[in-house]
Amino acid sequence: MNVKPVVKSDIEIAQQSFMKPIVEVAEKIGLHEDDLELFGKYKAKLSTEALKKLETKNSGKIILVTSINPTPAGEGKSTVTVGLGDAFTKIGKKAIIAMREPSLGPTMGVKGGATGGGYSQVLPMEDINLHFTGDLHAITTANNALAAFIDNHLQQGNELGIDQRRIVWKRALDMNDRALRKVVIGLGGPMQGVPREDGFDITVASEIMAVLCLSTDLQDLKKRLGQMVIAYNYNKQPVTVADLGVQGALTMLLKEAVKPNLVQTIEHTPAFIHGGPFANIAHGCNSVIATKTASKLADFVVTEGGFGADLGAEKFLHIKARSAGIKPEAVVIVATIRALKMHGGVPKAELGREDVQALTTGFANLKKHIETIESFGLPFVVAVNKFITDTDQEVRTLMEFCEKSGIPVSLTEVWEKGGEGGVDLANKLLEVIEKQESNFQPLYDLSDSLENKILTIAQKVYGAEKVEFSSKAKKQLKDFDSFGWSHLPICMAKTQYSLSDDPTKLGRPSGFTITIREFKPSIGAGFIVALTGDVMTMPGLPKSPAALKMDVDENGNAIGLF
Amino acid sequence: MNVKPVVKSDIEIAQQSFMKPIVEVAEKIGLHEDDLELFGKYKAKLSTEALKKLETKNSGKIILVTSINPTPAGEGKSTVTVGLGDAFTKIGKKAIIAMREPSLGPTMGVKGGATGGGYSQVLPMEDINLHFTGDLHAITTANNALAAFIDNHLQQGNELGIDQRRIVWKRALDMNDRALRKVVIGLGGPMQGVPREDGFDITVASEIMAVLCLSTDLQDLKKRLGQMVIAYNYNKQPVTVADLGVQGALTMLLKEAVKPNLVQTIEHTPAFIHGGPFANIAHGCNSVIATKTASKLADFVVTEGGFGADLGAEKFLHIKARSAGIKPEAVVIVATIRALKMHGGVPKAELGREDVQALTTGFANLKKHIETIESFGLPFVVAVNKFITDTDQEVRTLMEFCEKSGIPVSLTEVWEKGGEGGVDLANKLLEVIEKQESNFQPLYDLSDSLENKILTIAQKVYGAEKVEFSSKAKKQLKDFDSFGWSHLPICMAKTQYSLSDDPTKLGRPSGFTITIREFKPSIGAGFIVALTGDVMTMPGLPKSPAALKMDVDENGNAIGLF
Repeated sequence: MNVKPVVKSDIEIAQQSFMKPIVEVAEKIGLHEDDLELFGKYKAKLSTEALKKLETKNSGKIILVTSINPTPAGEGKSTVTVGLGDAFTKIGKKAIIAMREPSLGPTMGVKGGATGGGYSQVLPMEDINLHFTGDLHAITTANNALAAFIDNHLQQGNELGIDQRRIVWKRALDMNDRALRKVVIGLGGPMQGVPREDGFDITVASEIMAVLCLSTDLQDLKKRLGQMVIAYNYNKQPVTVADLGVQGALTMLLKEAVKPNLVQTIEHTPAFIHGGPFANIAHGCNSVIATKTASKLADFVVTEGGFGADLGAEKFLHIKARSAGIKPEAVVIVATIRALKMHGGVPKAELGREDVQALTTGFANLKKHIETIESFGLPFVVAVNKFITDTDQEVRTLMEFCEKSGIPVSLTEVWEKGGEGGVDLANKLLEVIEKQESNFQPLYDLSDSLENKILTIAQKVYGAEKVEFSSKAKKQLKDFDSFGWSHLPICMAKTQYSLSDDPTKLGRPSGFTITIREFKPSIGAGFIVALTGDVMTMPGLPKSPAALKMDVDENGNAIGLF
Repeated sequence: MNVKPVVKSDIEIAQQSFMKPIVEVAEKIGLHEDDLELFGKYKAKLSTEALKKLETKNSGKIILVTSINPTPAGEGKSTVTVGLGDAFTKIGKKAIIAMREPSLGPTMGVKGGATGGGYSQVLPMEDINLHFTGDLHAITTANNALAAFIDNHLQQGNELGIDQRRIVWKRALDMNDRALRKVVIGLGGPMQGVPREDGFDITVASEIMAVLCLSTDLQDLKKRLGQMVIAYNYNKQPVTVADLGVQGALTMLLKEAVKPNLVQTIEHTPAFIHGGPFANIAHGCNSVIATKTASKLADFVVTEGGFGADLGAEKFLHIKARSAGIKPEAVVIVATIRALKMHGGVPKAELGREDVQALTTGFANLKKHIETIESFGLPFVVAVNKFITDTDQEVRTLMEFCEKSGIPVSLTEVWEKGGEGGVDLANKLLEVIEKQESNFQPLYDLSDSLENKILTIAQKVYGAEKVEFSSKAKKQLKDFDSFGWSHLPICMAKTQYSLSDDPTKLGRPSGFTITIREFKPSIGAGFIVALTGDVMTMPGLPKSPAALKMDVDENGNAIGLF
């Protein structure tokens, strides 16, 4: 007999799961109903008073989940993050998960959410993937209010002398809409504004998203919003939001969005889902406020950075952790046998076939990320996220390889088994934390020059030989120096698929050059984005968008969301 | 002694008011906590189950609040609506208010909310005027998702043969942003979409807002969304949302927005604030679902239509009431002495001066609206909304004038005194309802031709002599006939300031011609918009936007919102 087991989809598992009232989930971590602003029965924001009350409390341990360079095979970093949180709960630890909130654009375009998978999901999955508590809408609104204020300033006499050819603030929508990438606005005559080139980014690429995620409180948010550079004037000097005088209004529009959202996993572990900046032109981590708040309420906070360790972990450590004064206790590096085989040269279509040789070759990618985490002085455990196609021989090979090299490793089955599938990982983490103190050290100092910061990242994190700067980039570096921006950290915008800036170079490439095409200053967020290659800040829709299968049933529930 | 009393601002009064938990407010009208989806402690949406449960209940009486043609002097229609609801509560009647929700665009641009004033306000005023429960954001999202699907359809081969010069679906933002009125999108080469002209409307002008407000339930919403015309193909035939196949996805995006929002007045009368379509290119009334739901829960529902009776009441009666099968029991026509004086020829700057003659002349405007309401077969009471600048002589003149002509009239002081100031109005309404049965009759039949419908409105409601159609309008009427759209009601887009289509003709003009420039079919909403003159569907910001004074205090409360 060969009966194929029925595998439930993520949305089926989510909809069939039982949720506890969020008030009950909150009580487990010492929050009372009065600390919450409820959004229905299963979602809540923490009130300003609750956040203030927590400020003086001690902090729990932060575990950062990162991964090898992502491949089309899938790694399951979010799934491991959720499963690990559940695993800590299962072994009696007080744990909270802190993750990013999803963007609607990709949801309507391509199948796939950001709420974990299988039995390691956060709930209510539908709400989180749709409008949730309105944070992204508030950011879109603030972004576009600012754009309207800029164009209104031009229309009403342009007192600040803004050079309309040098307005760098773009409009935003939480949508995949390629037709808005490059537009001309202000057409139709003198009553309809000043004509100029403009463009729309997806909301998660807005600097306001990065600002919200790096702010420590509402006043810090306002300060950062005021510092955002929106344009250059006719003297080529930066013009900021504070020059326009609208940082107060923008802060008002964001005063609710800045409060972290509390939900739960399928196994009722509390989870903060808050903020979701792009991991290329921004730093790709959930909000500082959520991570810090979680750390005040739990012994273990499980959080993640976007993409692989070369981007997400590097930025978490150099940007978020440094700016917020937090320090991870240990790191989980997620890998899958499928993805390692791809790094070893197997095309996606052939991943079903056992290939121990390719696995061994692909291991070089994992090895590089391990070395990176070690260079930051951080204890770690490799989590091999099990897929049903993995053969026993492949699993054995990988586990033995790690054990022989003294690499702490755990085989996790969180997709299929929820927290139970991550208990071994949780225990191994406790072991390494016990054994090895976290000696977190950034790889560069903020006082280094911008060029040297980039060189450090390229050589120590990517394994590059050298860095080249375009003539435009060189010119910008001089300008930035004169504007007093050289003390800021670097936010690399690089392909996630390779350690290099060439997405086709899988595994562990060497001898390559990183080319910096251009810089984009994000002064409010507090970093300088270094662009390598083309960075997509407004995705497009595929020929058959996922939206075609979406609907509601007669009870008003979402259908076809995933 | 001549001590000037300190007059508090609306936001001061609102912030100093005590709110009951919304669960308590809901209990008074027979709703349980389980019927609510809470948004914090003071706002809630009604659940799908609660809405279904109410369907079979008997309906209370609906009171429609309308006004004379608005003037810059202010009439206070929303304030009277709120105050009347409180007055009914005060005299022991079970009353619910049903109003529109405000748009953020005007809030950021010009001072002035849509939540009543003085001691007749709905609370929490700040939240309602900012993001509230996210309804407008959901509509913006659905509107722009549809736009992205259209442009993606062009990009991916244009199977439906959409003529890109004849795409009528515009993008939308809840913002005052004149620079987006006319834009060119899709620039930047073949990977960035198909270049074409486009434009942005403010969200409340989106047909989706009108559709949401006229839908009776989620399935009706989906049907209407599918019927929306987005473009014409190369054969000049209409292309609908259903042709694109995305009505299910749009419905999913709106599944929460379609649920009515429950809040309270300063005096704790329950209020549904839900939907807010423009009163020019749409029908300007809150949602059918909110009005109907309120009528299932109360003996008296106080609701309003946008602008004066020539627009708001006419559309409430011909479009909303007819489509929803509801019938108002009586009408309140709001007037102020200041506004009547303006209709009598006094410029705004001189309104402080007593002018009985101008008041008497201006009365003609009120008289015309009274005749209109009578022609619909509806009982009514005139509400004279008292302002501190009104002199005794003026008040006496107006009251005597009404009483001599047998016009039921009440002097209301709801701004200053809340419900207490509207008790006389409430009692007079009870009297007229007792005395005179509502014989509501539309002025035209749906089977009339579109031309005749317009002629009826122009002559019977505006007092026009005749109607002229531009050659474009005539051509459109022929097309509409061939598309089978002639059975739809008309939605007039006309200046609110005059009974005519010329905003400078105050009072009661006569002998004028109404010129129909163009039509805009809103097939999902279920009406044909007839445009007279220019209609602004995307406002601009003033030189000093209200946003410049906005901020947050150290506790995260809004400052300078009003």
